[in-house]
Amino acid sequence: MTAEAMMRSAIEQAEQVKGTTYPNPPVGAVIADCDGQIVGVGGTQPTGGPHAEVVALRAAGDRAKGGAAYVTLEPCNHHGRTPPCVDALLAAGISSVNYAVSDPNPAAAGGAQRLTESGVTVAAGLLAEEVAQGPLREWLHKQRTGLPHVTWKFATSVDGRSAAADGSSQWITSEAARADVHRKRAAADAIVVGTGTVFVDDPTLTARHGDGTLTSHQPMRVVVGMREVSPDAKVLNDDSNTMLIRTHDPHEVMRSLGDRTDVLLEGGPTLAGAFLRAGVVNRILAYVAPILLGGPITAVDDIGVPSIGHAQRWRFDGIVPIGPDVRLSLVPG
Amino acid sequence: MTAEAMMRSAIEQAEQVKGTTYPNPPVGAVIADCDGQIVGVGGTQPTGGPHAEVVALRAAGDRAKGGAAYVTLEPCNHHGRTPPCVDALLAAGISSVNYAVSDPNPAAAGGAQRLTESGVTVAAGLLAEEVAQGPLREWLHKQRTGLPHVTWKFATSVDGRSAAADGSSQWITSEAARADVHRKRAAADAIVVGTGTVFVDDPTLTARHGDGTLTSHQPMRVVVGMREVSPDAKVLNDDSNTMLIRTHDPHEVMRSLGDRTDVLLEGGPTLAGAFLRAGVVNRILAYVAPILLGGPITAVDDIGVPSIGHAQRWRFDGIVPIGPDVRLSLVPG
Repeated sequence: MTAEAMMRSAIEQAEQVKGTTYPNPPVGAVIADCDGQIVGVGGTQPTGGPHAEVVALRAAGDRAKGGAAYVTLEPCNHHGRTPPCVDALLAAGISSVNYAVSDPNPAAAGGAQRLTESGVTVAAGLLAEEVAQGPLREWLHKQRTGLPHVTWKFATSVDGRSAAADGSSQWITSEAARADVHRKRAAADAIVVGTGTVFVDDPTLTARHGDGTLTSHQPMRVVVGMREVSPDAKVLNDDSNTMLIRTHDPHEVMRSLGDRTDVLLEGGPTLAGAFLRAGVVNRILAYVAPILLGGPITAVDDIGVPSIGHAQRWRFDGIVPIGPDVRLSLVPG
Repeated sequence: MTAEAMMRSAIEQAEQVKGTTYPNPPVGAVIADCDGQIVGVGGTQPTGGPHAEVVALRAAGDRAKGGAAYVTLEPCNHHGRTPPCVDALLAAGISSVNYAVSDPNPAAAGGAQRLTESGVTVAAGLLAEEVAQGPLREWLHKQRTGLPHVTWKFATSVDGRSAAADGSSQWITSEAARADVHRKRAAADAIVVGTGTVFVDDPTLTARHGDGTLTSHQPMRVVVGMREVSPDAKVLNDDSNTMLIRTHDPHEVMRSLGDRTDVLLEGGPTLAGAFLRAGVVNRILAYVAPILLGGPITAVDDIGVPSIGHAQRWRFDGIVPIGPDVRLSLVPG
């Protein structure tokens, strides 16, 4: 296997633990023995548990000696709730470490330097862009800005409607697309909607498997706005925690979510418009169904764009068919 | 080369002549010699000129003898403005004919039977679906229904807007997407807009190359509606013919275009809505730009859908990135 294939396997490990590692980054690791055979893989465990490198090293056991490690993030060099991963790599006798992205966190950084000083061959940057835009995107955003990463998700007809003229919207997209949304929810720290959505749709806002059962990780539910939320609203049930934020100001919402990393905005047109106007959306996921609805209800209303010259410019970074629908992913252009 | 590769090459020939063969179908043909080498290719020439088979046979000359023909449509067996293609194939000594789609036109059909009776090996159906949904789609629709095939084309932001709040829309999509539209125009028989579009945008509605020069084939320009068209409107210039139809009724427009095959509907929200409500749109081409506009101007208004259960259901049959944009193609679901 090539180094790239090893790193791709580490990325898969990272994707699998995404959403379960808060506040730690979702990292993946692969250990290969001296013959280049994979002898251990792993992803970061929930907080207090071992990091990816340690999980993979434990799986490898003695076979790690003289082998190579492939990690999506620079191995940490600090004592947090667990000992430094660098210590574990050195103790296992790893002879080379390949990591994708350098750790921007000063407290944790320095891992590469210490490994090099200890005689380990260290290389950085393999598939760095893929990792930085993939499993580590939200965490890196948080490290860089101090703010949660916000993904605005909406379902729409091909003519840009989020509901038919009478307000009915269940369902615009297919079961396959809705299952994809539930996977995104399962990886998020929080889901944000407006009080209007709670009033109109009464959603549970949980992450569920295809059979309706809850996934092991549930994001916090966040309801934003001034309208009263009925004590019987499903969003207040026991499936997960729920935070009510009595404001319309996206910046205030962001401050309230300051300790979160990966936030999914599922609000209606008004809330989405407020977040877009405030410039606090970092990714757009549009699930486009091959249907036409027409009528007055669009996925977003006013976003403060008076003329074409002032359009919000984004960039497609993913165009993926999902069942009969297509998922368009956009990042700031 | 495989038979499939030969037919794919014939499809390419057909695509190249699309828009120039009216009222004949755009057909492509490939002639291979007895060793399986391509010795001639061709597409249907403008009306009165030779059909695809004859163009390809002329290119092949004596090398066609004992060879094979690959044609996107069953060779014709009738005297129109040119002699039957079957005669030409027999005269050239072709030993086998592979065609994709049978000719539904009773006057022209019977080609396969006559070839078989003359000792030629005949096979039908190779890549038939690709041809029927590709170069021959509009012509087959016309044969089947007697009506022109209507493609509704629109440019839209990812939130379904066809203009910013102040009405400005130049340009929502990229140069690459607009060049693609000009290729579609060059292949169409007619472009339909409403008088409102002429009033607001004053378009020339011509098919142009990247350098602004006109393509060799220009579709007829059709302006629909009751509003006065200024004698200075660009749509009335000498670049092509223009038809003014003083009605709002799509069915009446369709009757006026009864002799056309491939019609491109580029109208604004009101005209598009009328055509969609009337059920006379056969394909949708949405050029989606990675921008957000918000505001009141959508690509289509009311299409007569009261609730989600009554949504117009289509099916994506093409999702193609074009420059920074994406082109979504839909056919009735």
